[in-house]
Amino acid sequence: MSVTVVGSLALDTVETPWGRNEEGLGGSATYFALAAINYTDVNLVGAVGEDFPPEHTQLFERKGVNLDGLERVQGKTFRWTGRYHDDVNCRDTLDTQLNVFEHFHPKLPPKARQAQYLFLGNIHPSLQAEVLDQAAANFTALDTMNLWMDTALDELKAVLRRVDALLINDAEARQLAGQKSLVRAAQAIHALGPAVVVIKKGEHGCLLFTAGHVFAAPALPLAEVRDPTGAGDSFAGGFMGYLARQNAADFDSLRRAVVEGTAVASFACEAFGPSRLADMDLNAIQERVQALRDLTSF
Amino acid sequence: MSVTVVGSLALDTVETPWGRNEEGLGGSATYFALAAINYTDVNLVGAVGEDFPPEHTQLFERKGVNLDGLERVQGKTFRWTGRYHDDVNCRDTLDTQLNVFEHFHPKLPPKARQAQYLFLGNIHPSLQAEVLDQAAANFTALDTMNLWMDTALDELKAVLRRVDALLINDAEARQLAGQKSLVRAAQAIHALGPAVVVIKKGEHGCLLFTAGHVFAAPALPLAEVRDPTGAGDSFAGGFMGYLARQNAADFDSLRRAVVEGTAVASFACEAFGPSRLADMDLNAIQERVQALRDLTSF
Repeated sequence: MSVTVVGSLALDTVETPWGRNEEGLGGSATYFALAAINYTDVNLVGAVGEDFPPEHTQLFERKGVNLDGLERVQGKTFRWTGRYHDDVNCRDTLDTQLNVFEHFHPKLPPKARQAQYLFLGNIHPSLQAEVLDQAAANFTALDTMNLWMDTALDELKAVLRRVDALLINDAEARQLAGQKSLVRAAQAIHALGPAVVVIKKGEHGCLLFTAGHVFAAPALPLAEVRDPTGAGDSFAGGFMGYLARQNAADFDSLRRAVVEGTAVASFACEAFGPSRLADMDLNAIQERVQALRDLTSF
Repeated sequence: MSVTVVGSLALDTVETPWGRNEEGLGGSATYFALAAINYTDVNLVGAVGEDFPPEHTQLFERKGVNLDGLERVQGKTFRWTGRYHDDVNCRDTLDTQLNVFEHFHPKLPPKARQAQYLFLGNIHPSLQAEVLDQAAANFTALDTMNLWMDTALDELKAVLRRVDALLINDAEARQLAGQKSLVRAAQAIHALGPAVVVIKKGEHGCLLFTAGHVFAAPALPLAEVRDPTGAGDSFAGGFMGYLARQNAADFDSLRRAVVEGTAVASFACEAFGPSRLADMDLNAIQERVQALRDLTSF
């Protein structure tokens, strides 16, 4: 089965304790697509400006990502500038320029509509709803952030009622649910709609909750996290890519999908931008899945 | 094999989002002993004042903890007052009264000296060294804190060269090693002496490092953490108690010991003080070990 991702393509300027990367390829749809393409066909839906370097488009094409849904519009590409702290779990957003994303309304071409698995990257919940109106997916997952909880909570709740899974970080899960305990937060989020809740905790791994089941995966301990930008979207790409490849979303498959996502995300952290993601394959990912098994078995 | 623990006995006043506990039984040796006694014989070495309530001594006796090394001295028992934040991973120490601990020098009676497993609770490193001078243990583990890194680093480094294992929390591991990455921090700590490094991350579980091996255990996701005081010492009690019971410290045993410690620590968090710890048994712990297996297997 194939996957459609709707999200941002960006030029990111990122500073971490290990260095700086100026206007590199970024965006939620970018990381997701380059992770998921290891598992199955991927349709990317998003928008870039006239200044989007052709080598980035060529990278997606070389990897086999379907770009029917990538609009090139007048104006400049979305830009994000951020700086990570010594503790790379913390970052400051220094600048955000929406540019072509300001008036973006996702339009799904036929293949993107027909995909059975759909990932709604972190964009305004009303745009996520527009995507759901167009799509025929059987399994839909959504990412979101505190900005939409603060500014568009009603729209967010409306779209949550329509999706199967929410992927969210721990602080945002607590905020959305109004619960300090992640167990209670997951229960509260189930009640908002999503039967599957994945709470991402950065270097501490993640928790998967369904009604009656819990699974915990640590992150792979890395000696160096050069740039964690995109780790969450890479995780989502591995997670959804695996489910689409298996065409299953039972608890065993979800659990394994979390491990695949964890393995893929570890590559994303090892270099600036998506460069490590772009040059690996399913064999390399499976070696890390085995490393995660060794790490957690007793 | 038996275990000896040297550490504090305290009267703790604790405030958490779930309530307040006034002058309850606490201290590192208390939590350690009540956890480890589920596995093997435990010798407790510490000091209390004349005001130490007899029902606490009776609790240890009822559980079978050997109190030959418990001194009752003139003066008041050590007191600690702390308040936990909504995020119970964060706490403020509001008051510390060393009292009888100010002039405490541990003296190990024969059984405590002869124990093959020794845990040095979080006391001044020069006192930990005095204990090592008296003990005949084959396997020694040590807990410490940032206070000693700031005020007695040389003494701490001297005692680290003499122990097999260091149990330490993540922020303190980073401080001691001068490394942001926990992988690098563990490597740096190995170079200071301990062949076994256990990095505790509270609700995020813990990491076990030996030369060439890593193991990660998540914490059990709890709906309510009423009082995390003593969770680290309970973890240490389960960890050392298991190793002593097996009389082994190979990597398989260490890994399982981490899981036993994690299971025991989950009980400590569920109520104020050590009350939950005091009324469980090895069967109840093994149910949680199985729950941890279910939580992490894929």
